[in-house]
Amino acid sequence: MLPTITTFGWVPEFARGFVRDMRPRWAFEEVGQPYAVNLISDSKCPEHRRLQPFGQVPTYQDDEVAIFESGAIVLRIAECAGKLIPEDPAGRVRALQWVAAALNSVEPYVMALATNDIFEADREWSKARHVKVVSDLKTRLGDLEAALGEKFWLDGDAFTVGDLMMISVLGGLRGTGLLNDFPRLAAYVARGQSRPAHRKAMNDHMATFDAKAPA
Amino acid sequence: MLPTITTFGWVPEFARGFVRDMRPRWAFEEVGQPYAVNLISDSKCPEHRRLQPFGQVPTYQDDEVAIFESGAIVLRIAECAGKLIPEDPAGRVRALQWVAAALNSVEPYVMALATNDIFEADREWSKARHVKVVSDLKTRLGDLEAALGEKFWLDGDAFTVGDLMMISVLGGLRGTGLLNDFPRLAAYVARGQSRPAHRKAMNDHMATFDAKAPA
Repeated sequence: MLPTITTFGWVPEFARGFVRDMRPRWAFEEVGQPYAVNLISDSKCPEHRRLQPFGQVPTYQDDEVAIFESGAIVLRIAECAGKLIPEDPAGRVRALQWVAAALNSVEPYVMALATNDIFEADREWSKARHVKVVSDLKTRLGDLEAALGEKFWLDGDAFTVGDLMMISVLGGLRGTGLLNDFPRLAAYVARGQSRPAHRKAMNDHMATFDAKAPA
Repeated sequence: MLPTITTFGWVPEFARGFVRDMRPRWAFEEVGQPYAVNLISDSKCPEHRRLQPFGQVPTYQDDEVAIFESGAIVLRIAECAGKLIPEDPAGRVRALQWVAAALNSVEPYVMALATNDIFEADREWSKARHVKVVSDLKTRLGDLEAALGEKFWLDGDAFTVGDLMMISVLGGLRGTGLLNDFPRLAAYVARGQSRPAHRKAMNDHMATFDAKAPA
């Protein structure tokens, strides 16, 4: 079987471009691995929860394993292809480190902003809390920009799964204007998003929604 | 050199038991790898930030690599020892999946509670928001408990890095009473924390602070 991911067949316009199936799609394109997409409409149903306990997307399946968690899926795609992960042991460990940093040290702050400003916009605390959420996020972005320094990618010259995950996470800030204060980080994200594999993945991701009307 | 981690030489009482050096300490004890600890007092100084861009602990160094991020460190310890990660490829990928789930699908909700109730306790929104934070967290805990089911560990009979990370993350709920509503999850955390390796790691972690008065 082709490796297959599960994602939504339709999402509202504000979510397009942000659904996490973009991460495996981008990884598949980077390594040149054809894949199949299984479109679903209800991620909270018992059938889907057997694949994804938290009722989210994407999930991934190949001949050997069925998993969830975009970070683990991207690592699986990279390892199966023998690409996107440096061959030297130290470089490999650092790539894993940046995947973990994207998942645990940066994404929670990006998600906190989306949660506060979109999903909790009607709550009494949302406006007052916004300033703190942005401040915490900017601290992280400043730290990350300093770590990137003048390097092209996080670990230097080679684009790895760590960059793929970090740029995917930072892509969640599109439309917020927050990266304007971090020009090196903004340029890094733009570099990643201008890769042919990212463009192809984004086109395919968006085409899913063009082809369908909401149920 | 012995693999060496960096952590704080002193933290206030409410933080004891929760500092993330517990994760590599536990992993070292599980695999039987002696290690050294480098105690610091200022994680925000430029010297430490060269090892940890976000100014946090722990960091890790061995003869081959210097990294940060507790998830990546625990994976490094497990891979060097050839333990805590199943030998069959599918089991290995699922262990990585549970590490990613701990970092990205559970810990952000545990941290949101600590942030709201401790670090933002004096903010105007803290009390009103508490109910929503707890509700979101309980949804995750319920999903995770359902995924655990009647299994002993997340993937079945074998304790993996995925359990080590998940139980470490859930350990952050100590004192909140929130696990009382999830008896199978509470029993799972208790099983992990009663392992001799966890007890030894926690004793060593706590002994650091016993030995020192605050500066």
